[in-house]
Amino acid sequence: MTAAHPMVELWRGGLLESTHAGHAVIWGPEGIEDSWGDPDKVIFPRSSCKMIQALPLVETGAADALGLTPAHLAFACASHQGEARHVKLAGDWLAAIGLAEPDLRCGAHEPYDRDERNRLIKSDESPCQLHNNCSGKHCGFLTVARHLKAGPEYVEIDHPLQRMIREATEEVTGETVAGYGIDGCSAPNFAVTVAGLARAMQAFAAAREDGDGRARAMQRLARAMATHPELVAGEGRACTELMRAMGHAVALKTGAEAVFVAILPEQKRGIALKIVDGGTRGSEAAITALLIRAGVLDPGHPAALKRLGGVQRNWRGLETGTVRAAPGFPR
Amino acid sequence: MTAAHPMVELWRGGLLESTHAGHAVIWGPEGIEDSWGDPDKVIFPRSSCKMIQALPLVETGAADALGLTPAHLAFACASHQGEARHVKLAGDWLAAIGLAEPDLRCGAHEPYDRDERNRLIKSDESPCQLHNNCSGKHCGFLTVARHLKAGPEYVEIDHPLQRMIREATEEVTGETVAGYGIDGCSAPNFAVTVAGLARAMQAFAAAREDGDGRARAMQRLARAMATHPELVAGEGRACTELMRAMGHAVALKTGAEAVFVAILPEQKRGIALKIVDGGTRGSEAAITALLIRAGVLDPGHPAALKRLGGVQRNWRGLETGTVRAAPGFPR
Repeated sequence: MTAAHPMVELWRGGLLESTHAGHAVIWGPEGIEDSWGDPDKVIFPRSSCKMIQALPLVETGAADALGLTPAHLAFACASHQGEARHVKLAGDWLAAIGLAEPDLRCGAHEPYDRDERNRLIKSDESPCQLHNNCSGKHCGFLTVARHLKAGPEYVEIDHPLQRMIREATEEVTGETVAGYGIDGCSAPNFAVTVAGLARAMQAFAAAREDGDGRARAMQRLARAMATHPELVAGEGRACTELMRAMGHAVALKTGAEAVFVAILPEQKRGIALKIVDGGTRGSEAAITALLIRAGVLDPGHPAALKRLGGVQRNWRGLETGTVRAAPGFPR
Repeated sequence: MTAAHPMVELWRGGLLESTHAGHAVIWGPEGIEDSWGDPDKVIFPRSSCKMIQALPLVETGAADALGLTPAHLAFACASHQGEARHVKLAGDWLAAIGLAEPDLRCGAHEPYDRDERNRLIKSDESPCQLHNNCSGKHCGFLTVARHLKAGPEYVEIDHPLQRMIREATEEVTGETVAGYGIDGCSAPNFAVTVAGLARAMQAFAAAREDGDGRARAMQRLARAMATHPELVAGEGRACTELMRAMGHAVALKTGAEAVFVAILPEQKRGIALKIVDGGTRGSEAAITALLIRAGVLDPGHPAALKRLGGVQRNWRGLETGTVRAAPGFPR
């Protein structure tokens, strides 16, 4: 087992203050092209695998039966921040399948979006499950469950939907899942290796519209994500800003505890990484470094500099430090 | 240079999900008693050194000239969360020295306290510098600057106050500072080793009321912190909850980027630690483990379990995982 590889450094006053190490794999048409740390490290992909969890939505025909648009598919893969448009999309989607907010099983939390958060506070409203960053995924889950005429407890590990997700996960990663944990949104999250996750992302990258059913579903989901960055995360967030910065040519997805994946269709490459400490600062900087290296992201773009190489400032606008790639990373 | 030592693990679904490694030193009456990682690692103590930064407040006689109470001294060492009582204390203090909010140089940010945050939002008020988590320290800084009849730009590196803080830092750590960075609150933050910081905390722990001027100042500050945990951080926060859990017998202080220090007067011991990834989850769990090992914190106390060993739950109350000490830590 290889140790985690140093990837990201925080500098302040000319001194190294903090460091992030992790595991990363780039999977190309011929297999692993490059890796850092331990490719076989078992991780929880958390929300980074939402496009895998959305495969049954397309493959069962549930999406087409309901006439879902690419916006819906992007939203099914989202960790959104509860902006008004996200909340409306989730509510409208549930209504379209004859369900409502109480049918969700994701739980409620305060939205990350400040406008919507402030609106709730000013009107003495509590956040509801529509605000949960995973509500889009859960709308997709409920759509499949209804389509299959399966029970309402769609996050139970033995629910037909979760069985389908486990099977899809094993097929696209080429692995038997190493176990599962319960995610923040109560859905099962299947443990896979970093290499397996990168392999899956490569399959999404290589998938063509004229391929088999699996390939068509993958292509639609990855295309939907890259087309609608604002629905995959939200204003100011890494996935949204970086997908826009790359001209909608790459699909990106973050996951809790510092996982990040990228789908690069033009290069037929997939990337997966996990920063071992679980800190989002590290995973956002590391994926930025790998996207720059892949030639798909301009290192001088504001969305890149915000995560890597730019000047960090404090509350009074004074320069405090910078986040850099660790020496020798990505190489 | 010794590598960072594994200290904290996040487990989910029976699998290891994330890890935190760091450097820690326990300094006793005879010197270093125990250490993990590299005792000589140079770090920015960030807010963990606020009791050192407050030494000139007491030693110049500024505190007594103004009739400051132990509550004020605790607040001068605080990273508070902008609760109404914190904002009032800062405003009243400034008024007592004939100054006001614009004289602060800490910048404004939204308070972490939800009640005060919501009050601001509901009344369309912007947060002001009184809400800054460092406003207590800055009240102390301004008090010294006025007492010394020094200029108003008290966070400049060559201001007489900052020169005094640098000198005090070097005296209590037994080191020449390795440099300085600009902190989130715009004050200089002097880089020292983990061992030097632990040595300083031991000096605070061993200081007696009948000692010399330095010792008396140290004793007053540490006693004030332990007496007023609610002013050092705030409701729900680690410093506050853990100091209460230890019956006000220990002074604790967190610092940004995962620094934590402890002053144990009954044992005449000081502890300092830095988690290299800068994640607060790691530093809170690691100091909890070291306090338990020192015999001053009950591992079953809710304040301890919240940071180490307790069940973590998601938005629906389902068990998701637990934070544990890494194997062999603290030993």
